[in-house]
Amino acid sequence: MTRPLLLTPGPLTTAPRVRRAMDADWGSRDPAFIALTAELRERLLVVANGAGTHVAVPIQGSGTYALEAAADTLIGPDDRLLVLINGAYGERMAAIARRLGRQVAVLHWEEDEPVDPSAVAAALRDDPAITHVAVVHVETTTGLRNPLEAIAATVADTGRRLIVDAMASFGALPIDLATLPAAAILASSNKCLEGPPGLAFALVDRAVLEGCAGRSRSTSLDLHAQWRGFEGNGQWRFTPPVQVVAATVEALRLLDAEGGAAARLDRYAANLDVLLAGAGRLGLELYLDRDLQAPIIATFRRPPDLDFAALYDALAARGFLIYPGKLTRGESFRIGCIGAVTPADFTRLVAALEPALAAARS
Amino acid sequence: MTRPLLLTPGPLTTAPRVRRAMDADWGSRDPAFIALTAELRERLLVVANGAGTHVAVPIQGSGTYALEAAADTLIGPDDRLLVLINGAYGERMAAIARRLGRQVAVLHWEEDEPVDPSAVAAALRDDPAITHVAVVHVETTTGLRNPLEAIAATVADTGRRLIVDAMASFGALPIDLATLPAAAILASSNKCLEGPPGLAFALVDRAVLEGCAGRSRSTSLDLHAQWRGFEGNGQWRFTPPVQVVAATVEALRLLDAEGGAAARLDRYAANLDVLLAGAGRLGLELYLDRDLQAPIIATFRRPPDLDFAALYDALAARGFLIYPGKLTRGESFRIGCIGAVTPADFTRLVAALEPALAAARS
Repeated sequence: MTRPLLLTPGPLTTAPRVRRAMDADWGSRDPAFIALTAELRERLLVVANGAGTHVAVPIQGSGTYALEAAADTLIGPDDRLLVLINGAYGERMAAIARRLGRQVAVLHWEEDEPVDPSAVAAALRDDPAITHVAVVHVETTTGLRNPLEAIAATVADTGRRLIVDAMASFGALPIDLATLPAAAILASSNKCLEGPPGLAFALVDRAVLEGCAGRSRSTSLDLHAQWRGFEGNGQWRFTPPVQVVAATVEALRLLDAEGGAAARLDRYAANLDVLLAGAGRLGLELYLDRDLQAPIIATFRRPPDLDFAALYDALAARGFLIYPGKLTRGESFRIGCIGAVTPADFTRLVAALEPALAAARS
Repeated sequence: MTRPLLLTPGPLTTAPRVRRAMDADWGSRDPAFIALTAELRERLLVVANGAGTHVAVPIQGSGTYALEAAADTLIGPDDRLLVLINGAYGERMAAIARRLGRQVAVLHWEEDEPVDPSAVAAALRDDPAITHVAVVHVETTTGLRNPLEAIAATVADTGRRLIVDAMASFGALPIDLATLPAAAILASSNKCLEGPPGLAFALVDRAVLEGCAGRSRSTSLDLHAQWRGFEGNGQWRFTPPVQVVAATVEALRLLDAEGGAAARLDRYAANLDVLLAGAGRLGLELYLDRDLQAPIIATFRRPPDLDFAALYDALAARGFLIYPGKLTRGESFRIGCIGAVTPADFTRLVAALEPALAAARS
């Protein structure tokens, strides 16, 4: 059976070697799996150059679980979190923290505008009670890349702690924890790392995490207890998804073999270039300004006469799964650039787009 | 590479067909995966004959997540939970609920004693504030089978709601929701269902769950919101572990093909019979009375001259991974009977045990 290519924000197309790594059973308390877990934690730190400052805390579940674990473990009831929002994932972070009873303030931008560090600086000046700032590195809503380094510098300058939702960027966009002042980076196995879904993780500043013992009300999502579990005996506190762990380690080895995040970003950028050139020829309009669009997932305005369901089906029939839009205002659809896919795949996609668009226009 | 057989409480040995079901990528919002999710939910209900009364709510993560999700979603801050404890997993349920701020009472038995329904009845009489009762069906600490039907009848007679940790029993021991009055049954993909780990689930009485909107403080572990998500568009709220879902559906198909839970229980019972006959010949003593020992995982007393690490290594070298003990008092080790393993495997295990025991005695 030929499987379609997934041009989505994840789960996405994985390499055959990654999937084959799932064809084995592992005893979760066996030395072989303890070694695999150690390799996972080490490689995750290497991706973000965080070995000197941070610890890697994988947790079972989806990326959302890591966001909630960070809000529950790193932010106290007397703290105050400022969430920088220009899309659905910023909104989600605020909603998760509020639901946990945390004090939350927000700053909003339009979905096609990047977070403005000077506005963040002003907000931090105006509200001294703010202790933490959360930002989404690449907003999957649109594919917009926020200026992480400038935001981090602003937050650090005022002595606040930064929590980064790097779900859509980790493994491709540069994140250098040796120079980036961030308390925590949150991501998952199934986006730019090109692993299967089922695993989330937090890279947390060791000194910050040491101060968070016993704070989480959740047993499952307690990042401190999870970390101490790994440090204690190398094992997961609760049953790990052993096949997903094995495949994610394999995916991390492939990332290294490809040349690390920089090489992967180059490939994704080449994917996006082919996509945008072809889409432009076909009259599709990118939603974001080109310089704000990260090579992760591209958002296109949906022409009024284009039926998305028909476009989806027509492309699926040609072997490509794309993604619906998520804009608050305006109709759109999205095409992902990430996963085990290459510019040659996007050349084929562009060739498929022309008849698919024709079939989907009323 | 020959992989060892896992004679543990899970993750355990899976069938090659189950693992091969992981060799594909799935778009999590694609119709094909929506159909797979629907099949998963339907088949889970069929296993416990719950289609008329209960709904299946799978959640990403380990079994512990389902326990916490149930405590957070089904038990309110004004409710009071009585936990029936004769092992580590009963203790864990109480700890999870306390950590969430729930009111918790406990009844304790020794680790080799089953829960006594008459004592439960007395406790429920004495404390009218108790609204919910939680029990572990098979305590993985020992392999002890608690008298679920009698406990459920007692709880129902007094108008309380029962929450069952069926992690180690679901898919093998009888659970008939058409006759068993239980508000929720909690289990995971990777035990008697013989799927890979990474997926937990709750089968919840539909009328009970309908009354629990907005109660969970956790976004990730909110069983009501997760259920409404499935009912709304057939999709998971947050990225599902697509390969684990596909493999678990395949495992459920294999369970059906084997003849359902009754046939699986027969195989596990045959596994245990071979194990106990051989262990008895080799002088190993079962910790529990034979009639309390479920054919899930057997606990043996560790003779004072036997080094567990040496036994583990000697059996691992012969292709079998066993499990350490978890008794509060007394030394022990455990050997699981579940997974894609047969009496012939246990005949080989018994043959390997003799030299392994000799190598591990000081």
